[in-house]
Amino acid sequence: MILHTKAGISEAQAHEIAKATQSAIFKKDDYYVLVTPSKMKESPAEFSAHIEAEWPMSDDIQLASKSYLNATREVKVGKVTIGGNTGNTLIVAGPCSVESEEQIRESAALLQELNITALRGGCYKPRTSPYSFQGLGLEGLQLLSKMRDEHGFSIVSEVRDSTHVDEVIEHADVIQIGAKSMYDHGILKACAKTNKTVLIKRGFGTTLQEFVQAAEFVLSGGNENVLLCERGIRTFETKTRFTLDLCGVAWLKEYTNLPVILDPSHALGYRYGIADLTKACVAMGVDGLLIEVHPNPAVAKSDAAQQLYHDQFRDLMKAIKPVAEAVGRRIV
Amino acid sequence: MILHTKAGISEAQAHEIAKATQSAIFKKDDYYVLVTPSKMKESPAEFSAHIEAEWPMSDDIQLASKSYLNATREVKVGKVTIGGNTGNTLIVAGPCSVESEEQIRESAALLQELNITALRGGCYKPRTSPYSFQGLGLEGLQLLSKMRDEHGFSIVSEVRDSTHVDEVIEHADVIQIGAKSMYDHGILKACAKTNKTVLIKRGFGTTLQEFVQAAEFVLSGGNENVLLCERGIRTFETKTRFTLDLCGVAWLKEYTNLPVILDPSHALGYRYGIADLTKACVAMGVDGLLIEVHPNPAVAKSDAAQQLYHDQFRDLMKAIKPVAEAVGRRIV
Amino acid sequence: MILHTKAGISEAQAHEIAKATQSAIFKKDDYYVLVTPSKMKESPAEFSAHIEAEWPMSDDIQLASKSYLNATREVKVGKVTIGGNTGNTLIVAGPCSVESEEQIRESAALLQELNITALRGGCYKPRTSPYSFQGLGLEGLQLLSKMRDEHGFSIVSEVRDSTHVDEVIEHADVIQIGAKSMYDHGILKACAKTNKTVLIKRGFGTTLQEFVQAAEFVLSGGNENVLLCERGIRTFETKTRFTLDLCGVAWLKEYTNLPVILDPSHALGYRYGIADLTKACVAMGVDGLLIEVHPNPAVAKSDAAQQLYHDQFRDLMKAIKPVAEAVGRRIV
Amino acid sequence: MILHTKAGISEAQAHEIAKATQSAIFKKDDYYVLVTPSKMKESPAEFSAHIEAEWPMSDDIQLASKSYLNATREVKVGKVTIGGNTGNTLIVAGPCSVESEEQIRESAALLQELNITALRGGCYKPRTSPYSFQGLGLEGLQLLSKMRDEHGFSIVSEVRDSTHVDEVIEHADVIQIGAKSMYDHGILKACAKTNKTVLIKRGFGTTLQEFVQAAEFVLSGGNENVLLCERGIRTFETKTRFTLDLCGVAWLKEYTNLPVILDPSHALGYRYGIADLTKACVAMGVDGLLIEVHPNPAVAKSDAAQQLYHDQFRDLMKAIKPVAEAVGRRIV
Repeated sequence: MILHTKAGISEAQAHEIAKATQSAIFKKDDYYVLVTPSKMKESPAEFSAHIEAEWPMSDDIQLASKSYLNATREVKVGKVTIGGNTGNTLIVAGPCSVESEEQIRESAALLQELNITALRGGCYKPRTSPYSFQGLGLEGLQLLSKMRDEHGFSIVSEVRDSTHVDEVIEHADVIQIGAKSMYDHGILKACAKTNKTVLIKRGFGTTLQEFVQAAEFVLSGGNENVLLCERGIRTFETKTRFTLDLCGVAWLKEYTNLPVILDPSHALGYRYGIADLTKACVAMGVDGLLIEVHPNPAVAKSDAAQQLYHDQFRDLMKAIKPVAEAVGRRIV
Repeated sequence: MILHTKAGISEAQAHEIAKATQSAIFKKDDYYVLVTPSKMKESPAEFSAHIEAEWPMSDDIQLASKSYLNATREVKVGKVTIGGNTGNTLIVAGPCSVESEEQIRESAALLQELNITALRGGCYKPRTSPYSFQGLGLEGLQLLSKMRDEHGFSIVSEVRDSTHVDEVIEHADVIQIGAKSMYDHGILKACAKTNKTVLIKRGFGTTLQEFVQAAEFVLSGGNENVLLCERGIRTFETKTRFTLDLCGVAWLKEYTNLPVILDPSHALGYRYGIADLTKACVAMGVDGLLIEVHPNPAVAKSDAAQQLYHDQFRDLMKAIKPVAEAVGRRIV
Repeated sequence: MILHTKAGISEAQAHEIAKATQSAIFKKDDYYVLVTPSKMKESPAEFSAHIEAEWPMSDDIQLASKSYLNATREVKVGKVTIGGNTGNTLIVAGPCSVESEEQIRESAALLQELNITALRGGCYKPRTSPYSFQGLGLEGLQLLSKMRDEHGFSIVSEVRDSTHVDEVIEHADVIQIGAKSMYDHGILKACAKTNKTVLIKRGFGTTLQEFVQAAEFVLSGGNENVLLCERGIRTFETKTRFTLDLCGVAWLKEYTNLPVILDPSHALGYRYGIADLTKACVAMGVDGLLIEVHPNPAVAKSDAAQQLYHDQFRDLMKAIKPVAEAVGRRIV
Repeated sequence: MILHTKAGISEAQAHEIAKATQSAIFKKDDYYVLVTPSKMKESPAEFSAHIEAEWPMSDDIQLASKSYLNATREVKVGKVTIGGNTGNTLIVAGPCSVESEEQIRESAALLQELNITALRGGCYKPRTSPYSFQGLGLEGLQLLSKMRDEHGFSIVSEVRDSTHVDEVIEHADVIQIGAKSMYDHGILKACAKTNKTVLIKRGFGTTLQEFVQAAEFVLSGGNENVLLCERGIRTFETKTRFTLDLCGVAWLKEYTNLPVILDPSHALGYRYGIADLTKACVAMGVDGLLIEVHPNPAVAKSDAAQQLYHDQFRDLMKAIKPVAEAVGRRIV
């Protein structure tokens, strides 16, 4: 269950309650938020004088639940706010991997041309084969930082494992936790301690319950800036790379209070249907989209088949605006 | 491979080639279409004088392939045509099951109010339990026919197994082959012999390859009026009833020439997200939608949780029009 | 819930109760068995004088449940009985498809050499492509009957759809309902009316709940001779054809009272691991095995990759005997 | 492709070839092993004087492939060797989590009684909820080390994320990489640098290809002591916790050269069928088994439903011996 203490409670008192109730605890404004295991359904009577409000919860989706906070949280990505009543659908675009300064500069120019403010690029690639390109690492992060300095972008980049989480937190504005890393306690706990926005990708074998529980690791550490990203799950169908789970997105929108971002590029794995899928995502009223676009996909060092050409991306940005308007949203 | 004979060839000659090449064969205009097993890559030289054109194919998706016919086929549903360059997105609506004359009359009134021309209703329910409502059978079909006579609807109804396929063919305008019946040779072959439109639902455990191959059973018998319907596949995620596979829809649109219909109701299984999912489907540019709506879902004899209330459905029809327009399509 | 009437109740009275409780009903010895929808938890007081015993059930697995009958049912396959306390593990072997008299004669000779009493062979093949071999049909059934007449085998053959279920019931000793046909009400109801043993294969996209509910269609019609056959489910893994679900088999053994047969050939889809998988199945203590073996797999008209050579099969039969003994069972 | 240099080549020369071919490289005896990306099919002619042997490979399963080494590798677990021609099936047993000294002492006593040499216990639990028990961490590792000192066990314990991989490497004899961590480059690379045995669990959403490629990360760093552990994949079936993929095990045995360990406890998730599943695994001829057993499962802090009682475990150990003998193997 979730407990809010009364305002002005001392840190020592709050932590005493937390200890007695085996709770996660963090401070918010002038009160504390405690999260007990969900099997606790009533707070101990002895602490009632210190408790302002309480929410018994049916399972371990707690801080992210609409039963606790019946609205979509507002989260900042650079200067843009998404969620809440903003009606904003944020575009995050860029190449799968940062490959060179020349390449990322071309991507940056495209984004600037189209007034897109969030640049993505992978520096630590979670490849399944040790014999594939593994990313530029810190050098890539520095190239992205340079683009931010020059253009004012917010930077979205992925952390692959705990060994370099601090580097990503330092250089990126949005810490992306990859589909293969989203159970990683080392990463989740490091992200819980920062205030930077954290974008958690759903693992391709991950249930919605586990997905949102990963967000609870970050939220319960006191970082409320969390975005959920659906990027396709693994099913028996292999003609497409993964299966984008829009039924799951409907569930996330109904039952959780976190903004939802969609990644059609990784879901389909092929350029041909990205435009149609992106329109579908926009029409669902999601809070943002991750789209891979590369100056020359044919020579891309990773995910070559799914990255759009610049011209395709320009067309797509033009095409989704009326769809967004048709559902009362704005592309930002 | 697919062979077109020269025009005016005799039936006997055409069938001789069919026999020699182990082909399915049907007449079209004044020539014959033959479909050999796909492993045949060249037609026998001895018949070359009779062959007008030939398409070697990579696998057993042949007549449905864009490699054979690089466009979406036009198919009629009552007075409405979908596919081709029509830009039409057809709404097929009605209750999960026909339950009584009173109920189906209310559904009919709703459709007429909203200018919807295609009425759906199940009469033979493919239930997984013998202890559940199994449908009204022939009585239900007769009620649907009555609604057609009174309102001019086209009727879409499902065949469950081969024992009653003739009844459904007789009474319905569109023969729906259910997700659990789509491998049924008895049904597929009966549908191949009629000219009525056939809507094949993808089995929830069916690959795209097998799904389209089911259509080949109908097409290769000479019935070219086939619609493919995606209605959700079974995955590890159980918070939603099934997982609507829009990546698969992107593939169908790219590689097959058959119109694609979507059924968001069965995919999600719950009312709450049907509106969002339907907008997503419309934005993808599909050719039609099956939506379940019931005068009083709370007492529905099947699929109570997923059928919309009439007011929800009215709102939805209003909401999807601008989405359709935004992607250059028209709701019919 | 399941109700047993008192002995000697009149047919009219029994059917009156059945009607009032929306029950399936069949006669057993001198009493009737009624099965109500599972949501009924108490039988109507007005009929209490006629009710001998009742079992409220938690869901629609009723007659097949260990809550009703806490043992494995005995079922006959020809002269052999499996289930109960027999400790028998039955081998059913033969080619995927009956292809010719010569072929099936070779198979018969192999079985006789190895003292195997149950011969399988498909005559109506549920192919996913219309351009593949579809089976010999009635001619194949007649060949199998001939082998029974000559050798005394019991014959196991598959029904594909309702159009030929009567032919299969007439010629086979065990009616096999295929993985793609197990939701087919036409077949299930026809099988409910015969007393022949029915082997139901689990659909590759079918949950255990639905699988056992298919058996309920047959059981509740009064045919208690039902076998459940696990043959692999469809998962994201594609290096093997399907995924044999032995966890599911453990569940079936724990919660249902029906004998369980395993089909490792279809699950793996390749010869190389059939021996190991078969040993695993035997060690689990299942009631029978379906194994495909062909005189010359290289030229088999269906499933060529998974059928064993005769010598491989001989070796396998020798190898599984000590495994069976190690777990207290006997190969029959 | 895999290259073996000639014996006695200098380190500088070897690394020059590695650099030119973008290879992973490690020294073995007096030569070097290089692994290029699998798309390279011929080694550069300029280095031919230094190459002793080469194996072009079809994909990125290279060092683990039977095409490279056509046998099962021998790997040590404490004093016991598995794989190769040993015919050994190793039992690794113990509680899911180390909870207290008293608990682990009882487990140790059970193992000693049954002559089991490998003790497992989790100290860093990869829980999906932040509100569940997360393990004793270093304190748990120290308790395990104590048991080794007192009883001579080899210790198997899991690493959850890169932050504590060094601690686990220091205290355990076998580093277990969990199903949720097996894509973690930080862990895989740390394990590649040690010579301790590494047991990699297959992720529940992981293909066989990706699973074995995870092993390639360790092997190509020069640590050849790798075990593959199948522990159930996630499918649509939810009556059991996961689906143990024995078809996949058949594939691993056929195509890879690494010993295979099975974990029936996590696959099924319930005590009732562990005995049957374990017998099935033994009969398949696998190299080892991980089985969870707890002095008092009812109060276990994790996975309470699947851990065996001590008496159940004693019975199981007795029951599997004859099964092992029946397939020519020995339980160690």
